[in-house]
Amino acid sequence: MARTVAQKLIAEHLVEGSMEPGSEIGLTVDQTLTQDATGTMVMLELEAMGLDRIRTELSVQYVDHNLLQTDEKNPDDHLFLQSAAQRFGLWYSKPGNGVSHPVHQAHFGRPGATLIGSDSHTCAAGALGMLAIGVGGLEVAMAMAGQPLYVSMPQVWGVELTGELPDWVSAKDVVLEMLRRHGVKGGVGRVIEYHGPGLAQLTAMDRHVIANMGAELGATASVFPADVAVRDYLEAVGRGDDFTQIVADDGASYDETEHIDLSTLEPLIAKPSSPGNVVPVAEVEDEDVTQVVVGSSANPGLRDFAVVAEILDGQQSHTGVSVDINPTSREVLADLIAGGWLTSLVGSGARIHQSGCMGCIGMGQAPASGRNSLRTMPRNFPGRSGTEEDAVWLCSPETAAAAALTGRITDPRTLTDSHDLTYPRPTMPERYSTIADMLLAPLPQDEAEQVELVKGPNISSLPQFEPIEDRVEVPTLLVMGDDVSTDEIMPAGSQVLPFRSNIPKIADFSFVRVDETYPERAKGGEGHVVVAGENYGQGSSREHAVIAPRYLGLVAVIAKSFARIHWQNLANFGVLPLEFDDPSDHDSISIDDVVVLDGVHDALRSGRNLTATIGGREVALHHRLSDRQVDMVLAGGRIPLTAQAL
Amino acid sequence: MARTVAQKLIAEHLVEGSMEPGSEIGLTVDQTLTQDATGTMVMLELEAMGLDRIRTELSVQYVDHNLLQTDEKNPDDHLFLQSAAQRFGLWYSKPGNGVSHPVHQAHFGRPGATLIGSDSHTCAAGALGMLAIGVGGLEVAMAMAGQPLYVSMPQVWGVELTGELPDWVSAKDVVLEMLRRHGVKGGVGRVIEYHGPGLAQLTAMDRHVIANMGAELGATASVFPADVAVRDYLEAVGRGDDFTQIVADDGASYDETEHIDLSTLEPLIAKPSSPGNVVPVAEVEDEDVTQVVVGSSANPGLRDFAVVAEILDGQQSHTGVSVDINPTSREVLADLIAGGWLTSLVGSGARIHQSGCMGCIGMGQAPASGRNSLRTMPRNFPGRSGTEEDAVWLCSPETAAAAALTGRITDPRTLTDSHDLTYPRPTMPERYSTIADMLLAPLPQDEAEQVELVKGPNISSLPQFEPIEDRVEVPTLLVMGDDVSTDEIMPAGSQVLPFRSNIPKIADFSFVRVDETYPERAKGGEGHVVVAGENYGQGSSREHAVIAPRYLGLVAVIAKSFARIHWQNLANFGVLPLEFDDPSDHDSISIDDVVVLDGVHDALRSGRNLTATIGGREVALHHRLSDRQVDMVLAGGRIPLTAQAL
Repeated sequence: MARTVAQKLIAEHLVEGSMEPGSEIGLTVDQTLTQDATGTMVMLELEAMGLDRIRTELSVQYVDHNLLQTDEKNPDDHLFLQSAAQRFGLWYSKPGNGVSHPVHQAHFGRPGATLIGSDSHTCAAGALGMLAIGVGGLEVAMAMAGQPLYVSMPQVWGVELTGELPDWVSAKDVVLEMLRRHGVKGGVGRVIEYHGPGLAQLTAMDRHVIANMGAELGATASVFPADVAVRDYLEAVGRGDDFTQIVADDGASYDETEHIDLSTLEPLIAKPSSPGNVVPVAEVEDEDVTQVVVGSSANPGLRDFAVVAEILDGQQSHTGVSVDINPTSREVLADLIAGGWLTSLVGSGARIHQSGCMGCIGMGQAPASGRNSLRTMPRNFPGRSGTEEDAVWLCSPETAAAAALTGRITDPRTLTDSHDLTYPRPTMPERYSTIADMLLAPLPQDEAEQVELVKGPNISSLPQFEPIEDRVEVPTLLVMGDDVSTDEIMPAGSQVLPFRSNIPKIADFSFVRVDETYPERAKGGEGHVVVAGENYGQGSSREHAVIAPRYLGLVAVIAKSFARIHWQNLANFGVLPLEFDDPSDHDSISIDDVVVLDGVHDALRSGRNLTATIGGREVALHHRLSDRQVDMVLAGGRIPLTAQAL
Repeated sequence: MARTVAQKLIAEHLVEGSMEPGSEIGLTVDQTLTQDATGTMVMLELEAMGLDRIRTELSVQYVDHNLLQTDEKNPDDHLFLQSAAQRFGLWYSKPGNGVSHPVHQAHFGRPGATLIGSDSHTCAAGALGMLAIGVGGLEVAMAMAGQPLYVSMPQVWGVELTGELPDWVSAKDVVLEMLRRHGVKGGVGRVIEYHGPGLAQLTAMDRHVIANMGAELGATASVFPADVAVRDYLEAVGRGDDFTQIVADDGASYDETEHIDLSTLEPLIAKPSSPGNVVPVAEVEDEDVTQVVVGSSANPGLRDFAVVAEILDGQQSHTGVSVDINPTSREVLADLIAGGWLTSLVGSGARIHQSGCMGCIGMGQAPASGRNSLRTMPRNFPGRSGTEEDAVWLCSPETAAAAALTGRITDPRTLTDSHDLTYPRPTMPERYSTIADMLLAPLPQDEAEQVELVKGPNISSLPQFEPIEDRVEVPTLLVMGDDVSTDEIMPAGSQVLPFRSNIPKIADFSFVRVDETYPERAKGGEGHVVVAGENYGQGSSREHAVIAPRYLGLVAVIAKSFARIHWQNLANFGVLPLEFDDPSDHDSISIDDVVVLDGVHDALRSGRNLTATIGGREVALHHRLSDRQVDMVLAGGRIPLTAQAL
C-alpha cells in the first residue's frame, strides 16, 4: 500500500492499535528530550519509578529555559539535572549550550526516528523526516522506562508547496500563512505533511521553522520528507552517515489536502496576542516599535540571524528600539562570529544575549508597558513576555530587521527603495560549527550507578503514593461548581512556579483560590474527596494540579464531568475520577459529608459502576477508565505500576 | 607649594572651605554619571527641583544595572530615563551599551576634571588623573543643578609602587593586596594616590581596576597621575587631544605613606563574604568551584577578558563549572570578536551574556546554594549574588580562568606546569573600538523643552518628608553589629531593584536581611530609630537605603561609626546620623528601648553633642554634621531645603 511519510513513520513504530484516525495507538519511542522547566519533575518521576537506566535509543536533558538565575533555584536545578542525567544514562546539555530543538536536530536528529519531548515545540524535528511530538512530562518518563507513547491516530494533512518564495519572504511566512488560513486549532488531530516541488527551495533549517510552529496550529506533528535537503544538512553538521531517504510512495494519499503557491506569499505578521491573528505586514505598517527580538526555536538557524545582520550591516538601529539577539546555541554564536555577522549586529546596536530560549518564554526581555515588540518567536499569548499589558507581534527575521532600522512596523520589501538594499541571501558555511563539549555523554553504567542525585534545598523527591484502599471512608473537603480550572486547583505565577520540584511545598497552594483552608484541613485528615460540577480541571495540562492534592490525601474526585487532560492526569497519579449517574446528586452534597466506597477493587475491575454512600445517602456513580487506566489506579498510579514492571 | 596630584585636583575645584583634612570643602563638579538603578530617582529629583537644563560640563545617564527585564518595570524605566535625559540635556547610554565606568572613561574621561556619580565605583575614573567620587543620587542631582559637591577634605595617602608584577599576577591583585593589608575601612577619609616607578607597567585600564576597588577600601577617591599611560590610552580611544599631563610636584608630600613592591605580590583572593577577607590563592586551593564569572567594573578592560580567552583557548572548561562572561560594553565585545578572543571563549564552553553589570549586582547569574563562585567582580557581600546561602570569592581574571579549567580554586601560576601554559600577555589593538551610536547626544535646548517625561505605571513621585521634631520619643526597632552594608539595609537583586522608582513599594524590602519583621513593625509605629556598630552603611551609594527606611519612619541612626556615602545620604534625606561618645554604650541597648531626644533643634544648631535617654538610661551622643547639613536635617532634607531657597 502506498504510504505518505507520516504513515511510514507511524507504521514503523506501531506496537498497539490500528492506524484508524481517532483510535488510540501505541508507538515505540526512539529518542526523548526534556528541557529544564519540565525536566526536574521528569527526573523525579524516574527516581520514583526506581529506573536504573533509560531504555530509549537516546535521551537528552537540555537546560535552555531557566537561565537567568535570579536566585539559587535555577542553578540548584541545573546541578540536579546534571546529576540525574548522569545517574539515569542521559546526555546532558549544559546551560548556555542552546535551545533544545535545534541542538537536538543538529546532534541527534535522524530520519525515520520517533522523538517525544516535554516541550511543545519538540515537533520541530519533523524537518528531518522524524515523527516528533511534544507531550507531558510523565509520558516522557514512561518512554524512558521503555513504554510506548499512546496517542490518537491523527489524520494526515498533505500540504503541497509549489513555486518559489519571493525576495524578502521566508520560511516563517509560510507557517504564518498556514496560521492565517487555519488559526490556532487548524491542526488539531492532524499530522501536517509538507510535500511538492516548493520544498526544493527550503533547507532543513527552513523546514525546522515551519515544523516548529505546527505546535501553534495545534497539530500532533509536522513532517517533511528526508530528501536531498536533509542529506545536505546532515553533511553540514558532520553526520552525513545518519541520512536515510524517506519520501512518500507514488500514489500515497492524504486524509486532507492543501496547496500553497510560495510565489504568492508576502511578509506576514501575527498581531497581539495570538499566533493566529495573522495579517500582511503591509496592512499594519507605521505602528511604532520599541523592541525587536530575534531568536528562539521558531527562527533558530544561522541563516535567520545572518539575514538580520546583513540587513543591519553598516547601519544603526533606530534610537527608539532595543534590538535583542538570542543566539540559538553556542554553535550558532560561533558561526555568527566566523561569518562576520556578529560584528555587524554589535555595530548596529544590538544587545547580544546568552544562548537559550530567553525572552520567548518570558525569561527576561519583557517589553515596556503597552509598547509594540516584534519578535521572530512562535508565541505571543497575553503576558507571556513578562509584561502584564504587552503587545507582542510575531514575524520573520526580515520583518524584524526592517522594524529595527525604521522604529516602526515596516514591510521589508520597501527596504529595497528606502534603504537601497538588495535582498540578502547569506552564504551558509559548508560545515556548521559543531561544538559537542558541552553536551556531556551518558556515563557508563558502572559509573552511573555511583552517582548521587544532587538536590538543592528546593528539590524534594516525588512522594510515594499508596494504591486506593478497597474500602474508602473519607470526608468531602470541597464542593465546587462547574468549570473549575487547573489555575484554581494549582495556581501558576511567580510565587508558585519556583516550587515545581518540591511537591510538599507546592501542595500548600492547592485549591487556595477555591478555599484557602483546604491545605490545612487536608493535612489534618487521613484522605478525602472533592466534589465538582461540569468540566472539572479545564485549562492547562499541569500535573501538579493532581500531584499536590494527591499528596494532601485526595483519593477521588466526584464530578458531573471532567476536562480530558486533567482526567488523564488523575488516573496517571492514582486518583479515582468518578462521575455522577444523576448530575443533580451534586447539589445534595455538603462539605464534611463522609463518602463511603466499598469493594472498590472489584467494582473497578468488573465494570463501570460504583455506588457510594455520601452523607448517609446512596449515590450512583460511574467511571470511564480503560482497563489500562484501572490497572494504574489500582497500583497507585502509572509510576508505581511501571515500577512493578521494571 | 609642592602638591600631589590629588591636592592639585582638589585645589583646582575648591570653591568653599580649606584643604584641612577632615573639614568640609565644596568642589565644582565638571561631569556626572548616573546609572539606571539610581538614575530614575535622580531624574525625579531634577523634576521636583524644576531644573530646566543641567549646568555641568556634561552629564551622562547610563543603563547598565536593570537589564534582565523580567517584567515591564525595567523597560519602562529605560523609556523614562531616555525621556528625562532628553528633557534635561544629558547624554543617554542605551541598555546594552555597557557598564558606566569604563564607557564613561573611554568617551568622556579627561585628566584634571571632577566627576561624581551615583554609583560607588565612579572612583574608577581616578585612573585618568580625574577626581572621581561616588556619591548619593541627590548629590548628583544637586551638581547637575550647578551646586558644589560637599565632602570632608580627605587625607592624601601616597601608595608608592615599585618593581614589576610577576607572571600570573595582575592589577586586581594589587588592590586585593591593599584590601589584605587594610581591610574594608582602610581608605576611609582618604584619597589614595598611587605613584612611583611601578606605575610604568600599569596601563590606564589596569589603573582603572585598582581605582575602582578603592570603593571597597572605603576611600573617598583613588587617583593616578595623568602620565604617558593615560596619553596612550586616550590615543587608543581616539581622544588624544583630551590629554593633559598631571603629575605630582617634586617634593610634594603625602599625609600617609605606603609602599608596595609589585614583584613580591602573588595571586590573591577575597574569601566569602567580604572584599576584605583576602588571602593568597595558594592557601585555599582545591576548594570545588561550580561557577566562574568574568566581567564587571572591577575587571572591565579588553585585556581582562582577553587573558581569560588566551588561557582557555583550545581547551574545554571543567564539566562542573558554568563559565559566565559579561562583556563590559559593546565596544569590548566588538574587540573580543575582532581579536579572535570571543571565539576562544565560546569554544571553551563559556556563556556570553549581554553587556552590563549583570551578576555583579545580582542581575542573574546567582550561584547554586552553598557552592563556590569565583568572580572578577568587586564585591561579595552576603546574598548580593541573589543566592541566600552564597559563597562568592573575588579574584583576578587569571585566577578565575584557572578555576574554569580545573573546577577548583587554583593558583594560576601552577598552570605553567599543569597545563603547559606560558603566561599570556594579550596584544591590545592600537585603537580600541569606539562605537558612539548608542550614546545619544543631548538635544538642543529648544527640542529638549518639548520632551515629555515618559512615566510607566511603576514610576511614582518622591514622597514628601517632614522635618525632625524638636522632641523625639520613639522605639529602637533594630540593634545591629558592625559593618552593616547597604545590601543588608536595602537589598539589590532582581526582586528589589525593579522597584527603585517606587518608594512605597521598595520600602517593604528595608532591612529584611537583618530582620524580616522590620517593615511591618516600622509601619505600625510613629517613627523609630535603629542602632548599629562600626562602619554602618558600607557598600553601595544607593539612596534607597535611606529613603525607604525614612519613608517607614526612620528618624535617626545611632552607630559607633558610619560609612561616608551612607552618612551623607542620611543627612541629605533628613535622617539624623548620631554616634556614641562611648562605643560600649551600643551593647546596653535592646530592641524596643525607647529613645528620647529632647531639644533636638537647639542641640543641632549649637554644637556637636546630644544626650539621649535610651531605655531610661542617659547615653552621650554626638554628630559630625556641618552647619549646612544641620540646615538640611532641620528642613527635612536637602530637597525641601533647596525648594525653600528657590
